Amino acid sequence: MISVAIVGNGNVGSHLWKAFQGADGIEVTQINSRELVINKVFDVTIIAVTDDAIPDVSAQIKTSFVVHTSGSVDLHALQNSGRKGVFYPLQSFTKEKEVDFTKIPFCLETKNESDLKTLEALVNAIEGRVYHINSKQRKSIHVAAVFVNNFANHMYTIAHDICEQYKVPFDILEPLILETSEKVLNLSPLDAQTGPAKRNDSRTIQNHLNLLNKAQQEIYLKLTESIQEHGKKL
Amino acid sequence: MISVAIVGNGNVGSHLWKAFQGADGIEVTQINSRELVINKVFDVTIIAVTDDAIPDVSAQIKTSFVVHTSGSVDLHALQNSGRKGVFYPLQSFTKEKEVDFTKIPFCLETKNESDLKTLEALVNAIEGRVYHINSKQRKSIHVAAVFVNNFANHMYTIAHDICEQYKVPFDILEPLILETSEKVLNLSPLDAQTGPAKRNDSRTIQNHLNLLNKAQQEIYLKLTESIQEHGKKL
Repeated sequence: MISVAIVGNGNVGSHLWKAFQGADGIEVTQINSRELVINKVFDVTIIAVTDDAIPDVSAQIKTSFVVHTSGSVDLHALQNSGRKGVFYPLQSFTKEKEVDFTKIPFCLETKNESDLKTLEALVNAIEGRVYHINSKQRKSIHVAAVFVNNFANHMYTIAHDICEQYKVPFDILEPLILETSEKVLNLSPLDAQTGPAKRNDSRTIQNHLNLLNKAQQEIYLKLTESIQEHGKKL
Repeated sequence: MISVAIVGNGNVGSHLWKAFQGADGIEVTQINSRELVINKVFDVTIIAVTDDAIPDVSAQIKTSFVVHTSGSVDLHALQNSGRKGVFYPLQSFTKEKEVDFTKIPFCLETKNESDLKTLEALVNAIEGRVYHINSKQRKSIHVAAVFVNNFANHMYTIAHDICEQYKVPFDILEPLILETSEKVLNLSPLDAQTGPAKRNDSRTIQNHLNLLNKAQQEIYLKLTESIQEHGKKL
């Protein structure tokens, strides 16, 4: 049995708590920051707090192996006196939506092998996927995630605006959105690239620009140029 | 029984031919451009040729209801003397990959109701989804598709580059890519938007920029600005 304390009741903390509650071999407790001073001993204390709060919250914990859950914060930001680690689930959490941790990648980092084994056991208990990732790599994953999540979603937002403007139901694009994302499971995104930018089809590009407002045109041109520059490098 | 001729053996022509072969109530023939002059009569002749070839190829067909399959070409580009229409499947086709037309949206446009019924019967035979879309709307869908397909895929390419640079396996991003696309089936993309741009988290943005090369930085800044401007408009 591994005893786990979770500090923080934001999206990550709440979803992890729920997942561990249903997992074999884990005894999970949610604690608030006032209780930190009690110094009850847990095998792992997961602090799922905002990036800025990680040093202060961790500094109050004297007796436990402490891990944070942030993609962008260094292992050494933890200020607890004991052992340190990172337990970063790479997924986009929203409060209202259930999270299935099965197959979710967890980026693990510790300073010694036995702590790593403990974190691996936690991931396995909720059927996630284990990755050993150092702080530098984790920060690069965090920025890559901005591209595939935040920026890809912004592409959907612009498409949504275009559909509204021309009175077309956005749901007509849903199969294409899914196909585009599923394609990169089997094909490198570079090989999956199609479209007027890739083909240097300047007439279609001009026709597209004519349908867009100025802000949309700027994005369209910037990304078209980027696709074409990327093609040249090969 | 509806008799269908398909002109063109590119991606769209080949996939449609395969789909109609397996469909009840459809008799499909693939014909090459030399055979056009024979003027055998079909209920529908689908010309799945490049955009530029649509006027010339259609001009040779005297006796049939002719439809093209292009997202960006006007109905009136068809130069056949008879009835005209558009039969545009909104999906990204690659030669090697099987296409399941079930639930694929077909944008249909005709000049009269009975032709529309014929095209609807074709879509139903392969279990696609029918949308009535005029030429102007269809062109807007075509440009929206560039955003959700070509540009979203380019976001994956940049993330792939970042993973290579920092020696991280790209497959760690796959669950996030799928989650991001599936989220907009239930949530408007504007509501689904998260991340440092949305939160105005300038410290994280700066940390991200430090990890990127110049070309990547330009895209990152442009899209961050666009997300923030979009937020202001609400």
